[in-house]
Amino acid sequence: MDIQSQLALIKRGSDELLVESELIDKLQQGRPLRIKAGFDPTAPDLHLGHTVLLNKLRHFQELGHQIMFLIGDFTGMIGDPTGKNTTRPPLSREQILENARTYEEQVFKILDPARTEICFNSKWIEPLGASGMIRLAAHHTVARMLERDDFSKRYASNQPIAIHEFLYPLCQGYDSVAMKADVELGGTDQKFNLLVGRELQKHYGQSPQCILMMPLLEGLDGVNKMSKSLGNYVGIAEAPTEIFGKLMSVSDELMWRYYDLLSFRSAEEVASLRNAVQNGKNPRDVKVLLAKEMVARFHSEAAANHALEDFEARFQRGAQPEDMPELSLTAGDTGLPIAQVLKQAGLTASTSDALRMIDQGGVRLNSEKVSDKTLRLGAGEVVVLQVGKRKFARITLI
Amino acid sequence: MDIQSQLALIKRGSDELLVESELIDKLQQGRPLRIKAGFDPTAPDLHLGHTVLLNKLRHFQELGHQIMFLIGDFTGMIGDPTGKNTTRPPLSREQILENARTYEEQVFKILDPARTEICFNSKWIEPLGASGMIRLAAHHTVARMLERDDFSKRYASNQPIAIHEFLYPLCQGYDSVAMKADVELGGTDQKFNLLVGRELQKHYGQSPQCILMMPLLEGLDGVNKMSKSLGNYVGIAEAPTEIFGKLMSVSDELMWRYYDLLSFRSAEEVASLRNAVQNGKNPRDVKVLLAKEMVARFHSEAAANHALEDFEARFQRGAQPEDMPELSLTAGDTGLPIAQVLKQAGLTASTSDALRMIDQGGVRLNSEKVSDKTLRLGAGEVVVLQVGKRKFARITLI
Repeated sequence: MDIQSQLALIKRGSDELLVESELIDKLQQGRPLRIKAGFDPTAPDLHLGHTVLLNKLRHFQELGHQIMFLIGDFTGMIGDPTGKNTTRPPLSREQILENARTYEEQVFKILDPARTEICFNSKWIEPLGASGMIRLAAHHTVARMLERDDFSKRYASNQPIAIHEFLYPLCQGYDSVAMKADVELGGTDQKFNLLVGRELQKHYGQSPQCILMMPLLEGLDGVNKMSKSLGNYVGIAEAPTEIFGKLMSVSDELMWRYYDLLSFRSAEEVASLRNAVQNGKNPRDVKVLLAKEMVARFHSEAAANHALEDFEARFQRGAQPEDMPELSLTAGDTGLPIAQVLKQAGLTASTSDALRMIDQGGVRLNSEKVSDKTLRLGAGEVVVLQVGKRKFARITLI
Repeated sequence: MDIQSQLALIKRGSDELLVESELIDKLQQGRPLRIKAGFDPTAPDLHLGHTVLLNKLRHFQELGHQIMFLIGDFTGMIGDPTGKNTTRPPLSREQILENARTYEEQVFKILDPARTEICFNSKWIEPLGASGMIRLAAHHTVARMLERDDFSKRYASNQPIAIHEFLYPLCQGYDSVAMKADVELGGTDQKFNLLVGRELQKHYGQSPQCILMMPLLEGLDGVNKMSKSLGNYVGIAEAPTEIFGKLMSVSDELMWRYYDLLSFRSAEEVASLRNAVQNGKNPRDVKVLLAKEMVARFHSEAAANHALEDFEARFQRGAQPEDMPELSLTAGDTGLPIAQVLKQAGLTASTSDALRMIDQGGVRLNSEKVSDKTLRLGAGEVVVLQVGKRKFARITLI
């Protein structure tokens, strides 16, 4: 593949590449590049949002490069040293190794193990010692660090910034030095930290890494970023019918976004699918292709076929119209009871009407008959509700 | 000695004590307190300015307390990690131990070795490791650190502050934790750092150290702080006649300041000397007592007597009037030639007149005949120049 085609594949779906001319130089060297991506050791339960970065790493592997999958165990073992953030307890080495195994199980559904090295940064940061940490800190100024968007906002609004928070970007940057990274991938929210890596490499006499920033994937609601806590996610360990059904629920617009960021189909294939839809092809059929691809990736081809059959069987029982009312309802912290959802969506006249319809087997949620009258829908969920044969609504819980 | 008398001795000559009621509590416990004072491992060549703190430590020893003489070898071995400050090269362990020996030789002229422990902070800081340094940094916020006077000025004027500079006060504070210090002494310019120690001790569940701040001693010019680089100092390793002569050159006002901060005479004795001068005693005689005390402290009683005899012999050869013109001359970087000094001070009509007077043996510098016509006087020097029998001037080179 010529350099321009390599570059096109690398840039596909990305937000920003710095510095393109430097990356071209590196690609022209013809050697396997060292591609760094850092992962949080506390969250090994991956969803499609995480796979945007993994897919990009896979592109690099397809071009013959070496992935360095970095688990930030050094800071993971520290946790939140102020003790204020209870979602970041210190992890033991055993927990981190266990999390790393869970990562491996998941990421090797996307990445080629032969071209992937799992790295732990405690290996080079802990040996720095107290004096090495001082020397590392000397490479950056307070003013420059305060330019980081979240720091400057907190400083301006008198919210405390603990001094160790200034050390973390330096540790992350030093990872690039220790790993001799040629390229580092990260979310757009990581730009500042990725740039610190470039700078530190220069200080240490290395040629600076290129940085490639990937967008944050929108969740099923098409608005917020995909996140477990918002409930608008597709976990890669979820059951085939779950993955399939959730992906079939997204809007047509979001489907194209998912094609760009999640599908391994070539840019040309995706373009021809778009064309076909513009010329009258049912977008639902294109959505099926995407849903099958995802199920096949995280389970198997057979599971994908089975999920499709299952979906179609249910679809035939309660075929959904192509157009239906779309609306958003507020779920609050505790979720919204199904009867409330039905009433507020105008699908039933009242909650008692709704409960009676459920008793009669006349309510379907994503084509599945609802029998549990105490069911609650939570914020982030996107569902298709059906009452009787003809009343439908696509509802986003917020 | 009752608590109030102990407190009076402790506070004598000091600038500020925080918190007095806490110190009273500690004194009332009746145990030997752990008194911390930190010293720079790069500057073992002590002058009287350094001894202000040492004298105060001696007061604590007189009250039965234990001095912890802390040599900051941890940062000394790092030096200036940015490499910009060439006056702070990294020191080897051997150099530091050598400097420590030089310190001991000097400080035990003031301190009682039996109640002095020499400590090195690398012993507890290096074992913190990289992760301990992160945890330590978590105890303080960026905003609080930027309140330190020099940091806030540099930040406001866009002068760079390297991040490791934020770690040094934390290391110094952690020293207090590791040493379980009851009291820390320091210069008034150290207030911020001393307070960090108090705070960290609270974080670590210790009762916070009291802090006692000593003023910076003025140099022989009576204006700038005593400093080797300004040349306005009396080194404690200098020859007896040097120490004696330099002290005899200070103004009467500065003499009283030196009595407060340098003399071991009791407050009552000093008060009675002041009284005597007010009632007509020649201040020169009181200055002799101070000069003798200093020479005796750093050399011996015999050396002090000899220095006095030597001084008086010279004094008789060229007795100085009690009142003489005082003036300041600009020495610049390279110093001012003696002939220029004489001319600018109005002691000779011209530089050639000055050179002729030197040839004739008619010029005295601090009562010593000048023979070297190429002699230059440097900034910070305070001298008495005499031409012939009757022309005198006290000159401060700036």
